[in-house]
Amino acid sequence: MSYTIDFQPVGRRGSCPEGGTLLDAARALGVDLASVCGGYGTCGSCKVQIVAGQVSPVGPREEGELSAAELAQGYRLACLAEPLSDCTVHVPPESLTALQRTQVEGLEVEVEIEPSVVRYAVHMAKPTLKDLRSDDERLLEAAGPDAVLTDLEVARLASTELRQMGWQGHVTQRDREIVHVAPHGAPWLGLAVDIGTTKIAAYIVDLATGQTRVARGAMNPQIAYGEDVVARLVYANKGSDEAAQMQARLTDGLNQVVEEACAEIGAQSTDIVDAVVVGNTAIHHLLLRLPVGQLAAAPYVPAVRGAVDIKARDIGLQLAPGAYVYLLPNIAGYVGADHVAMLLATGLAEREDTVLAIDIGTNTEICLTHQGQMASLSCASGPAFEGAHIKFGMRAAPGAIERVRIADHHIEYKTIGDQPPVGLCGSGILDVVAELRRTKVLDASGRLVGPGIRQIEGEREVVIAGEGEAANGRAITVTQKDIREIQLAKGAIRSGIEALLRDAGITAGDLDQVIIAGAFGTYIDVESANRIGLLPSLPLERVSQVGNAAGMGARLAVISLAHRLQAQAVAQRVRYIELARSPQFARNYAEAMRFPNA
Amino acid sequence: MSYTIDFQPVGRRGSCPEGGTLLDAARALGVDLASVCGGYGTCGSCKVQIVAGQVSPVGPREEGELSAAELAQGYRLACLAEPLSDCTVHVPPESLTALQRTQVEGLEVEVEIEPSVVRYAVHMAKPTLKDLRSDDERLLEAAGPDAVLTDLEVARLASTELRQMGWQGHVTQRDREIVHVAPHGAPWLGLAVDIGTTKIAAYIVDLATGQTRVARGAMNPQIAYGEDVVARLVYANKGSDEAAQMQARLTDGLNQVVEEACAEIGAQSTDIVDAVVVGNTAIHHLLLRLPVGQLAAAPYVPAVRGAVDIKARDIGLQLAPGAYVYLLPNIAGYVGADHVAMLLATGLAEREDTVLAIDIGTNTEICLTHQGQMASLSCASGPAFEGAHIKFGMRAAPGAIERVRIADHHIEYKTIGDQPPVGLCGSGILDVVAELRRTKVLDASGRLVGPGIRQIEGEREVVIAGEGEAANGRAITVTQKDIREIQLAKGAIRSGIEALLRDAGITAGDLDQVIIAGAFGTYIDVESANRIGLLPSLPLERVSQVGNAAGMGARLAVISLAHRLQAQAVAQRVRYIELARSPQFARNYAEAMRFPNA
Repeated sequence: MSYTIDFQPVGRRGSCPEGGTLLDAARALGVDLASVCGGYGTCGSCKVQIVAGQVSPVGPREEGELSAAELAQGYRLACLAEPLSDCTVHVPPESLTALQRTQVEGLEVEVEIEPSVVRYAVHMAKPTLKDLRSDDERLLEAAGPDAVLTDLEVARLASTELRQMGWQGHVTQRDREIVHVAPHGAPWLGLAVDIGTTKIAAYIVDLATGQTRVARGAMNPQIAYGEDVVARLVYANKGSDEAAQMQARLTDGLNQVVEEACAEIGAQSTDIVDAVVVGNTAIHHLLLRLPVGQLAAAPYVPAVRGAVDIKARDIGLQLAPGAYVYLLPNIAGYVGADHVAMLLATGLAEREDTVLAIDIGTNTEICLTHQGQMASLSCASGPAFEGAHIKFGMRAAPGAIERVRIADHHIEYKTIGDQPPVGLCGSGILDVVAELRRTKVLDASGRLVGPGIRQIEGEREVVIAGEGEAANGRAITVTQKDIREIQLAKGAIRSGIEALLRDAGITAGDLDQVIIAGAFGTYIDVESANRIGLLPSLPLERVSQVGNAAGMGARLAVISLAHRLQAQAVAQRVRYIELARSPQFARNYAEAMRFPNA
Repeated sequence: MSYTIDFQPVGRRGSCPEGGTLLDAARALGVDLASVCGGYGTCGSCKVQIVAGQVSPVGPREEGELSAAELAQGYRLACLAEPLSDCTVHVPPESLTALQRTQVEGLEVEVEIEPSVVRYAVHMAKPTLKDLRSDDERLLEAAGPDAVLTDLEVARLASTELRQMGWQGHVTQRDREIVHVAPHGAPWLGLAVDIGTTKIAAYIVDLATGQTRVARGAMNPQIAYGEDVVARLVYANKGSDEAAQMQARLTDGLNQVVEEACAEIGAQSTDIVDAVVVGNTAIHHLLLRLPVGQLAAAPYVPAVRGAVDIKARDIGLQLAPGAYVYLLPNIAGYVGADHVAMLLATGLAEREDTVLAIDIGTNTEICLTHQGQMASLSCASGPAFEGAHIKFGMRAAPGAIERVRIADHHIEYKTIGDQPPVGLCGSGILDVVAELRRTKVLDASGRLVGPGIRQIEGEREVVIAGEGEAANGRAITVTQKDIREIQLAKGAIRSGIEALLRDAGITAGDLDQVIIAGAFGTYIDVESANRIGLLPSLPLERVSQVGNAAGMGARLAVISLAHRLQAQAVAQRVRYIELARSPQFARNYAEAMRFPNA
């Protein structure tokens, strides 16, 4: 038995099987009726007015959501009211869905919340001798008209869970595929992860609102196999056991950070129904256990460049059993999905002016957009800016010297958390080098020449914090070797910038904006960066620091399918420049290593 | 750089990138050029005539395949000739593909060979500093225009294999998805499996010709958990470990029989790029590790009724890593995919007359089609016809008594392989009962009453082979209890037949044909079956014995996508009758147990 339901003023009309709700009918007929709670009668957003026909009696939940006046006028909640005859239903404008919008922190753009999954409530009759439908038939008939149940793992669980849930709950659908079945009221979460060579940043996102519920960082446990990715590629390339080991290290780390993050908000990792992961191409391949031999040797081609869309469980991620993980596309062997995510978050593809975007890390990726043409390259800047290979270098943690100024031959510094100094983090080292150069203690070639230099065991160094100040009673210094490390790093980045400018036939003065992304880039003093020649000399106001843009891009791709598609288009559009092929590379690098005149 | 190629007289015209062959161009433009060898230059089937334009020079392989006269007329192999300018190409009629047809053994119908996968040759340029395309881009550009590489496992292997294969080989595509990459000349195989409660029948099929290369049987190793499926369901329902164990037993057994079958033809199980599995609903669920609790208790609903299409590796089947396994749909808790396969093989859905099809096994499924309406049911016939629960029962193996006649109070028998008798297989027991009834040693109620009966330890029995004849010196007898077992089995089947006839409002005389499928059904003496009342009394010529129809159906579904779709339609069309719900069931069963008048 079925009834004809006529939705006004939207003008949709069709039949609705007996036992279904008006919301079911609206969905079947493509009426975009709002349903914030997913059809559970708790949000009041699907309010409609019965103009003609009989519907089921008003229950306590509707009495709670609707006023006496509304009830008197025939208003009902579409998710609870079941037609008992043919009906004409008026849908007030406020009950029609408008796409929600949100703002991802750190980004100025508003984003339409349109994840790759949708969720809706279902209820089913339980099996009896008179209703012998199988579990999959029962679920599919209650689900959306185009739904399919193709994931065996989801089918396995659904049978058990539907019984436990009394044959009602929420279904999450991705395209046509049912990927999750959960009880009413369960959290509905997405996961965005930016996996760096050194660090992991994980974000748990509410898929209904687009809000980031919790962000959490962790170390990339693969670091045990080498600080830089090449060492890890070499290890993973030894054999399938080694590759599996490298993958397991990473997925174990991811599972742990995700579990902790979920615990913080009283959720479980199985509440996560969709995920996006970004990382550089090497990390991407190690996570997916793709062959990496060809990434470690010229011409450094990725095994997979295109976006990857697979079941999270297939790489060992413990999310909802049917959840997918989506990896943004790579551009080249050393320009990966994290770069694409950065371009997505900074909106570089839409810029019509001339903009340079730099994500500083162990590998630094740079993109220049000029007259609508985008070109990217990667440079091996090394981990010096992250405090590695620096005598007193350390990560940005309490006690790290993060700011340094030299005034009247006297060194002033500021530590993180105003703790006694333990060492220098990247921004602190950058400041030291810039100040030494400004005060001409350092010459243009990078040699410590000025006053205040001491020599210990044959190496020249400058004392930043004396024995009496330092937390562990040992003077914190910057050595000639440290300065060489910084010089190599900044030379690599600067020569990359110059190669892009040259490629586009422009000069630094033509840059309308320079965007600096990445954790290190967020905390550096831009003036110091200019002073050591990390960046070309530019008015400070043209430089923006945007934080972890790759992580933002990943979040955008979780909450917005449109951004996911945009990322694919961007990855196709960017022209990759192989720095090693540039004939002038060696000369430019040598030049870029020099410090500007003070 | 690309050239315009004009195929005549088919009238397809379009551009072909430099470096591609005429066959590539034909495929891209939808010209159905034959390519039996898959583009390897060894079959000569893609012969075309160059009417205008320049192509690459004739090589030794073409000289081998084409006559001097053909070469003089501009004939070339499309798979080897690369255009060097715009070309006009004449395609002779014999070079256009006509769908191949084959005949599956045991079936009278010819089948168009159209598996769910297609195969074609690819060749790629290797990566250089000037051609930095990633492996996936390279493969996708060489593959069909709509190809996608979505299976991570295939992408993983492709990178390594393409290098090993020198960037050329064969690609197998399923819909748009690339599922396999293999060297030129590798076998291209499909697998069809019918998993019975007791036995497994596996068939390896050549996907290019549709021919069955090898058929092999094995025992279902789950038998260690119980002879009948209910015991296995109860075990698997204990917990996830038990379910996993039950699944692993079966997949281990399948992997072994497949490996052995492949070895017989010098192939490997990784040459199998597509598979179809059929079995009853319980076996289907145990293989897929689907919940089975609901199958073992009323109302006995399947967790999954629809066709299942998953990666073979996801259930532990070791085929080509990207291969799919397709399970035909089930109809109900006790009418499974094997019944659907039987209906497919016997073509019952197309019959317009009145036909009964019976697949006799531990569970016996019966379908009646009458005036285009199909109804099926299942009856628990038990394993007696397979020799189980019978004192001297045994499987159909050498030494089994398979035929028995009583003439002049003397028992004559024939054994399999003409060996000294070891025991009785199903057809032998059936003959014994029929002959005892014919000679009135047995009364209509099933009681041994006649002459020649001896009584041992309180039980009456008839000696079939005396001590002096039997292989192990012990007389082979049929006991009163054995006869009761046969009575229960035949009563179950007969009452199922009667229920279907009653449901359709017809009598046995209306049956135009009775089809008996299954191993046991193939070997029984139909007259004996009539005599004990297993079948309603019918002229013998209306009864056909068709062998393992479920296995044939599985093979049809491997080599013909059309048959796969037809199976889905059939499963939807069949009306399931729950025997236990029939109010007359108990009375009918009691009646069906009686033997007809001799």
